[in-house]
Order: sequence, then structure tokens, then C-alpha cells
Amino acid sequence: MADKRRFSGVIAPVLTPFGEDGGPDTERFVAHCEWLMAEGCTGLAPFGTTSEGNSLGLDERMELLEELVDSDIDAARLMPGTGAPSLADTIVLTKHAVELGCGGALMLPPYYYKAPSEEGLYRFFSEVIDGVDDDELKVYLYHIPPVAQVGFSLPLIGRLIKAFPDTVVGLKDSSGDWSNTAAILEAHPNFEVFPGSEIFLLDGLRKGAAGCISATCNVSAAAIRNVYDNWQGADADKLQAGITALRKAIQAFPMIPALKALVAHYRKDPGWAKMRPPFTDLPAAEADKLIKQLADAYNFKLDFAKAA
Amino acid sequence: MADKRRFSGVIAPVLTPFGEDGGPDTERFVAHCEWLMAEGCTGLAPFGTTSEGNSLGLDERMELLEELVDSDIDAARLMPGTGAPSLADTIVLTKHAVELGCGGALMLPPYYYKAPSEEGLYRFFSEVIDGVDDDELKVYLYHIPPVAQVGFSLPLIGRLIKAFPDTVVGLKDSSGDWSNTAAILEAHPNFEVFPGSEIFLLDGLRKGAAGCISATCNVSAAAIRNVYDNWQGADADKLQAGITALRKAIQAFPMIPALKALVAHYRKDPGWAKMRPPFTDLPAAEADKLIKQLADAYNFKLDFAKAA
Repeated sequence: MADKRRFSGVIAPVLTPFGEDGGPDTERFVAHCEWLMAEGCTGLAPFGTTSEGNSLGLDERMELLEELVDSDIDAARLMPGTGAPSLADTIVLTKHAVELGCGGALMLPPYYYKAPSEEGLYRFFSEVIDGVDDDELKVYLYHIPPVAQVGFSLPLIGRLIKAFPDTVVGLKDSSGDWSNTAAILEAHPNFEVFPGSEIFLLDGLRKGAAGCISATCNVSAAAIRNVYDNWQGADADKLQAGITALRKAIQAFPMIPALKALVAHYRKDPGWAKMRPPFTDLPAAEADKLIKQLADAYNFKLDFAKAA
Repeated sequence: MADKRRFSGVIAPVLTPFGEDGGPDTERFVAHCEWLMAEGCTGLAPFGTTSEGNSLGLDERMELLEELVDSDIDAARLMPGTGAPSLADTIVLTKHAVELGCGGALMLPPYYYKAPSEEGLYRFFSEVIDGVDDDELKVYLYHIPPVAQVGFSLPLIGRLIKAFPDTVVGLKDSSGDWSNTAAILEAHPNFEVFPGSEIFLLDGLRKGAAGCISATCNVSAAAIRNVYDNWQGADADKLQAGITALRKAIQAFPMIPALKALVAHYRKDPGWAKMRPPFTDLPAAEADKLIKQLADAYNFKLDFAKAA
């Protein structure tokens, strides 16, 4: 049976490099995206949490996306984050992504006002979908309560799927709570569910998950892809144990600055490590410790030669 | 001694009415602002939390502000909310407000990423101020941890005042924690501090606060102004008790929908009650209960005759 899913496999929420002037660095950004696809990513999710996406302005997000669509990467492989606190800005960003041909839109709930009702969130997404008004729109709900505070309950997910079966097609679960991911997979077998960490990749695939969308795909896409490609093989558990261990070693550091420090080090491009406020760069001593730990314990390195 | 403060007194975070099409209703908005000034507000803070400001798109906020500046209200009396999760959008909104001649900008911290470091927040505001690059900019820090989750610590406030003494001139404290407001007032006697509720108005004024910026100013500005004007008089405590009781009666309901329901009722304009998702309107039965309770206990009503 043909895979009818729009997205599956290993999707990186792409890091956003910044230039000397503090603005997004388009050249570094597109080069990183192309390298990620060469490393085995099946798709890219720019402007996620890992991308410092919510630290980018509307214009910056749209300009970067236009550059990416102009690259060699197929727009159908792109699932940009288009969420914003307001209905109006969410519609602007989502319409723009759909018009550029992006395969999906990864959508945060409106996250400024806390504890909104299920009805209020349902209406928000209904109005976004009505406002974008395009059959090509495919919405992936972005559930990340540790950061957004506002999330998607099981009843809300069910209600949105029922009302918009051809539009609300998937979800990224960054709750860190496997029982939540499992419950969504059980309730909605045809929904494209992506755990937000590769730690849950094998368990997810065995229960029908579509793959994973994970920060660490920025530096370990090849190994994660290997689990995805061989999840029914005899070595699957062993391969999973490898990517789980690496993930845990990285997430012992502040995740986004740590990932940028790794890319900066192996690209021999110190400027890559730059974070936009309110984030700060990983201190040099921490970066050295991270690089050494990963090299010693996992023979970790990044090879940028193939992204010529 | 002349009052060197830019803002003082009773400032309303203005409710934002929506039209049938779901967009902001400019005509109702400007009329409400003019009525608030006639009721005794000394200034207006559009696009605050009460304004559903974070549910408005960048363009909607800028267009509404332009309409307001074109009205009879002096732009120097306006302190629009210009905060956004991203550095870039915060600069766009703030620059726009300063160029329109607004007396101040009420600025949220970047609120998507949680638990940012003091250094990261300091750099965020430094870069906003550098980015706006206008001596006319007057920043009012907007501390509302119950909603934004991210707030301003005392050391951060001190550091910003020290680095930008002519720019970072005040703060709205919506922590609901009087001891926090008192600590800021003690540490920074010349800082324009506004408690976020009139419950703390008299205590605040006695300790050097500049006034208050409170949601309920949308429906009880005259009574709050009366406390402000007579805070050194013999009746001050009694007047304060009156506005405290009314505030408590209103905040027993969901605050923003309740305020809109009151305006809708007394304007005989049911459309005024409309909330934008993720908020939902106050149910009719709740609105009736609120209106009756306030009328019975406080002889409460709104008179729109004077805003011809």
C-alpha cells in the first residue's frame, strides 16, 4: 500500500544562524538545510522552537522561507512553523507558506493568553483554516506545553480532525510524555504523529508514528535515519539505544546553544554559535566540554565535506 | 516642583472591539478611547493584555494606533503595548509608536522561551533600544508573570535603569504582588511605577507610585480618578475601599469578556461583547448575573451620553 502521508521519517527543526549584524544569515541557513537533507533528513521544519523561530520577526521568517524555496530543496519537504500569538499573524505566515508550496505548516496554539478553553482554541484553528482558505493547506499541530504552556488536549485534537479531516493531518508531540504520544496514536491511527525527540522514535514507529521531528536531527540526522530505515530489523533496539544515549548526552547542555556550538566547531565557523536574545551563546568552556564528551564517548563528529 | 513624569494617574489598557468580519472595529475603538478620556483617564495603553493586544496582528496594531493618533486624543497620552516574542517585531512596533509621537511604549519581555537568563533579557532590551534608535523612546516595562510567565527581576530592572536612564523610565506591575511593587518603588524612587490593579492605588500613591494601569479603568475610570485626585484627603481610604470592592466584584468573572459585556450592555450594542479566539464571549447568563450584581451592590452603570 502506498504511503499516503505527506511527511514521514526524520525531520529537522532547522537551527537559524545569525550574521554579524544580528539578522538571520541566509547563506549559512540554506547551506545548513542542504547539508541536513544530504545527511538523511526526509524533511525540514524551519522556525520551530529549536530554530529560535519565535525570536524571528514575521518578515524575517517569510524572507528566509523564500530563500529556502529558491534552493534545491523541494518545497513539499518543508513544514515551516507558522504559529504566532495572534490569529492575524498566524494567517499571514500560513498563507505565505502554502502559496510557496510548502508541504505542511507546523502550528503552535496561540500562546500568550494562558488556560484558553477548548472551544476558544477550536475557534482559533477554525478561523485560521478559513482565513487561509486553500485546499493545499496541511496543518500539523505543534504540542509543546513545556514551552508554549498552551497545548492540545486529546478532545481538541479529535474535534479538529473531525471538522477538518483533509487539513488537520498531523501533530508534533514535544510534551516529552510518551503516554500522551501513545494515546494520540491509539485514538487516531491515520494521523501523522511525530514525537519531538528521537528517544521515542522506535517505540513510536512500532505504534504507528510517522517518524520524529527533533532538535538533535540538526547534528545526528544520519544515525536517526538509520533507526528509521531499519526499525523492523534485528538491530533496531541496539540502534535506538545509540541515538538515545547521544540525545541524552546533548540535552544535558542547554539544547539550542549546544547544537549551534557543535555546528560552529565542526564547520570551523565560530559565528555559527551566535544566539539571538533572549538566548545567550553557550560559554566557550561548556562548548569545549560538550565537544570533548561527545567525541570521547560516541566518536561524535560532523562532516561538512559532502555539502560542497 | 513640576511633575517631570511622562505619565501619571489613571491609564486604561483599552478594550479592542471587533466587527462582524472578525477584524478590529476602528470606529467603536476610537469612540471608546474618547469616552475613556472624557471619563477621567489621564492616558491610554492600547494593546495591553486587556486589549487582547497579543491576539492582534502587527498590521492591525499599527493601523489601530494610526487611527487613534488621528483622533482628538493627544499622542503624548498614549502608551501602546509594543511587545512581541521577537526582537524584530518588537522593534517594528516600537519604532512605529515613537514615530507617531506616542508618549511611551509598554513593553513585554519576549515571552515564548521560558526561563531566559537575566543577561539574555538585558540584551534583548538593549538591542530593542539600539534598534529603535530614537531619543524620544520612553520604555515602560510590562511585568505580568501570571500571563507572560517571563518577568522582570529587581536586578534586571536596576540594570536597565542604570544603562538607559533616559529611556527606561517606568514599569507596570501586574504581578498582583504588592510586596514586589513596594520593593521596586523603594529601590527606584524616580521610576514611574504603575500597579496593574487599582486595588493597590492608594497604597501605591503613598509610596510614590505614579498611578495605576488597570483593566477595570475601562468601566470605572471616574471612580478610580477620584481616588487619584483625593489620595491625600480625609476620605481617601473610604474612596479606595469603594473601588477595591467594585474591582473584586468584576474580577470574580473572566475579566476581559466581562468588561466587554458591560460596555455592550450599557452601549446597547451587543456586538461590542465579541471576543477574538482563543477567548470566547461571556455567556449571556453570566453577563446578566454580572450586570445585576453590580447594579444591585454598587448602583453601577455606564453613561455614554457624554461621548457624543
